[in-house]
Amino acid sequence: MSLTVRGYAALSAQQPLGLFRFDRRSLRDTDVAIDILYCGVCHSDLHNARNDWGNAVYPMVPGHEIIGRVVEVGSAVTRFRQGDAVGVGCMVNSCGGCASCAKGQEQYCDNQATYTYNAIDPQDGRMTYGGYSERVVVSQDFVLRIAEGLDLAGAAPLLCAGITTWSPLRHWHVGAGSRVAVVGLGGLGHMAIKLAKALGAEVTLFTRSAGKEADARRLGADHIVLSADAAQMQASAGRFDLIIDTVPYVHDVNPYIPTLATDGTLVLVGYLGPLEPMLNTAPLVMQRKAVAGSLIGGIRETQEMLDFCAQQGISADIEVIRMQDINTAFERMLRSDVKYRFVIDMASLKGIQ
Amino acid sequence: MSLTVRGYAALSAQQPLGLFRFDRRSLRDTDVAIDILYCGVCHSDLHNARNDWGNAVYPMVPGHEIIGRVVEVGSAVTRFRQGDAVGVGCMVNSCGGCASCAKGQEQYCDNQATYTYNAIDPQDGRMTYGGYSERVVVSQDFVLRIAEGLDLAGAAPLLCAGITTWSPLRHWHVGAGSRVAVVGLGGLGHMAIKLAKALGAEVTLFTRSAGKEADARRLGADHIVLSADAAQMQASAGRFDLIIDTVPYVHDVNPYIPTLATDGTLVLVGYLGPLEPMLNTAPLVMQRKAVAGSLIGGIRETQEMLDFCAQQGISADIEVIRMQDINTAFERMLRSDVKYRFVIDMASLKGIQ
Repeated sequence: MSLTVRGYAALSAQQPLGLFRFDRRSLRDTDVAIDILYCGVCHSDLHNARNDWGNAVYPMVPGHEIIGRVVEVGSAVTRFRQGDAVGVGCMVNSCGGCASCAKGQEQYCDNQATYTYNAIDPQDGRMTYGGYSERVVVSQDFVLRIAEGLDLAGAAPLLCAGITTWSPLRHWHVGAGSRVAVVGLGGLGHMAIKLAKALGAEVTLFTRSAGKEADARRLGADHIVLSADAAQMQASAGRFDLIIDTVPYVHDVNPYIPTLATDGTLVLVGYLGPLEPMLNTAPLVMQRKAVAGSLIGGIRETQEMLDFCAQQGISADIEVIRMQDINTAFERMLRSDVKYRFVIDMASLKGIQ
Repeated sequence: MSLTVRGYAALSAQQPLGLFRFDRRSLRDTDVAIDILYCGVCHSDLHNARNDWGNAVYPMVPGHEIIGRVVEVGSAVTRFRQGDAVGVGCMVNSCGGCASCAKGQEQYCDNQATYTYNAIDPQDGRMTYGGYSERVVVSQDFVLRIAEGLDLAGAAPLLCAGITTWSPLRHWHVGAGSRVAVVGLGGLGHMAIKLAKALGAEVTLFTRSAGKEADARRLGADHIVLSADAAQMQASAGRFDLIIDTVPYVHDVNPYIPTLATDGTLVLVGYLGPLEPMLNTAPLVMQRKAVAGSLIGGIRETQEMLDFCAQQGISADIEVIRMQDINTAFERMLRSDVKYRFVIDMASLKGIQ
């Protein structure tokens, strides 16, 4: 009562990803089966595959920026039908009963959302496998609709990089007149610039490299501030309502705090770990500033973001690769050699036996 | 064109405070002259007198929790008249023209509010002198009305300890149904408990000492959690909407973060400096939590707090001392040997030549 599919898996932290056959469950009443067309390559795929966070279970099929078409629906599915273009992001389920789920914030589910891969599905006790594969089976409540006109390959990164930056932009009420700064120009950072700009904000990129200026402006940044240039940093004092910090490794956030306006927030979306060097509380107290975190986004706001992107013609800047190039892509990602997201064309799997 | 008054001043960081004569300016049109009845002793008075923050100017007359009666008003004063019971807090002026001042948040004035002591008054270029003195002259816009029925000595600490905890309670929308925790049971902490409870919140005190339980409950705490007890901390996981951290020295905030609910904020009101050990961002990201700071409060919200306290019968728990006991009081404060605020009875100055 299941279908054997092909995907790419990590078999250990040390091995490159390779072909892996595994079973997808038969459809439950509310399930949707999706033929995967594209899957974005998130930095966390690399972290997970190499067990950087210490919780890897092998074999692991990464991938949580999934775009595909519905091929089959369960008997109780009302919201999708065969042929629909759909997406699946970082979560495939949540408890549905807690306060966070009731608010449509399944990412903060009190009983922990079920992640799209490297998680135990509490419904059947089996590991979840992600989008580096031919097909996925997901409850309709965690399937997103992809509106006509959205580029399907470029839409894949919206499911993680997009929503991870959209959610704080909306939560902190960014709109016309807001001043937003973005730290780091990668997969998340380039989406943060596009989305903040489209929401009407004045957008600044903090970067260590003057070479990024032209690209940042093309993406929508109004200003570029070189974070190593003390005069430029000084000139930005008290400026930003929200800073979205996308840097995925340990770094010093202290230099950015003075550039927040009173009541401003620096929100970390890329880094989990101790803030080094130590965070100085003085500027937080003196101007009621905050350092916060934010995790992906809920299903409702993901749909909202996808519809907004379709309407505004926004998608990610991507480089399409074949599934068999994933290990090279991981290495290039480690060198930040990607503008700005790899997306796997899953048709490439068809040629692999 | 000025009046010589007596006060107590620090003449250097090393010397005890002693009698000091200085001039108060003649009244400008909008000024109010106040005979000081009581002045609270804030921990920052000690820090300032001993130049712990490196910006002390001597002689320094501390004191920013001032209660007195109006003895004279300038020709354009409309809001006060002779005999009114009034208060003066941490600020005696601000620019009045910036966005923060327009919002009634003079404490965040873009051009820096004029502090009640150890500051240069931009109007005349002279140092400000605080409430450890017979009389003060202040613009009516920075004078607070003390409603009938409020105990005058117990009201003094409301001007700093009270507003410093009230402002975050209001800014983060604490009310019926809120769960608030307080870290540290001193001048600020005991006011935080009283005010949060009166606003309708369920209030928890985090403390390192089981001996504080009875007092905390008397002040209004519903629960006491021993921060060194791992089981009690674990049982508080995900509980609080707001944690008011009043600890005035470097300390580890990491243990408190897991006790915040999703979207919860830990607000620092007592400590300016680097957070040691390092703040871990993981729980901030995973449940959209924040670490913020907050500084005293604006004039409008200080008046709101004073009126609320009069209506609810809330004042600080105090120990009244004579002016000449201030140096002993400083030493006792360093040992946390005060429940919960020293207040100087300024009548004691009359006996000193």
